[in-house]
Amino acid sequence: MIVGTEWLIEATDCDAGRLRDEPALRSLFDSIIADLGLKAIDSIWHKFPGEGGVTGLVALTESHLACHTYPEHRTATFNLYCCRSRPEWDWEGKLKSSLLAGEVSVAKIERGDVVGRNLKSESSNLRSTAAGGDV
Amino acid sequence: MIVGTEWLIEATDCDAGRLRDEPALRSLFDSIIADLGLKAIDSIWHKFPGEGGVTGLVALTESHLACHTYPEHRTATFNLYCCRSRPEWDWEGKLKSSLLAGEVSVAKIERGDVVGRNLKSESSNLRSTAAGGDV
Repeated sequence: MIVGTEWLIEATDCDAGRLRDEPALRSLFDSIIADLGLKAIDSIWHKFPGEGGVTGLVALTESHLACHTYPEHRTATFNLYCCRSRPEWDWEGKLKSSLLAGEVSVAKIERGDVVGRNLKSESSNLRSTAAGGDV
Repeated sequence: MIVGTEWLIEATDCDAGRLRDEPALRSLFDSIIADLGLKAIDSIWHKFPGEGGVTGLVALTESHLACHTYPEHRTATFNLYCCRSRPEWDWEGKLKSSLLAGEVSVAKIERGDVVGRNLKSESSNLRSTAAGGDV
């Protein structure tokens, strides 16, 4: 049973300063939530000290939105998990403009069934195992 | 640049009552955090009304832990994202005992690079696209 869709987004070659800018990241989240018609329940924001990055988590009535930024690697990752069908957001365009990302990749995963049930074993960075049977 | 590891866990054929039991799910999170030596920054818990499920989000100094439960589908999903190497947790054994799950699947994804860069197109439930180049 598919219970939701999760988008996993990697933004690389970003501007390090933008990845430390919590207000800008909050504003980016506000745009995602507004554009996709999502509803926030509560949020957690944490700026790591000094040159560190930012963690943002928002609980949605539709599931959750998360980001972690790594200024030292000029990288940010996002998760958007929605339990109802939503249109595609323009992650590439928006992250290139807001974070000055050089490259943006988006993976889309259906949740609730075995993730990657039919994945080939040569997959470089996703491994999936399933253990079935009644207990 | 790999910046973290994310585990995506699907537990199916669970006991519906356990999936509405917020204290039990909080206790499960406490076990995960203690067993793996993680450090919680803050958390959000939300019980949907009536027969609804539970959403739990914990911001960790190591990234985040999330769950969403769907009693109507006897399904729970978990995300554990860690930016430092952690041992494998016994998701199968623990979710079979705590949620009476019939089947548990665990997928492991490296974050920060293109998710599923080498995935075959016949993958049933993961689609990945990348758009590169400078802006």
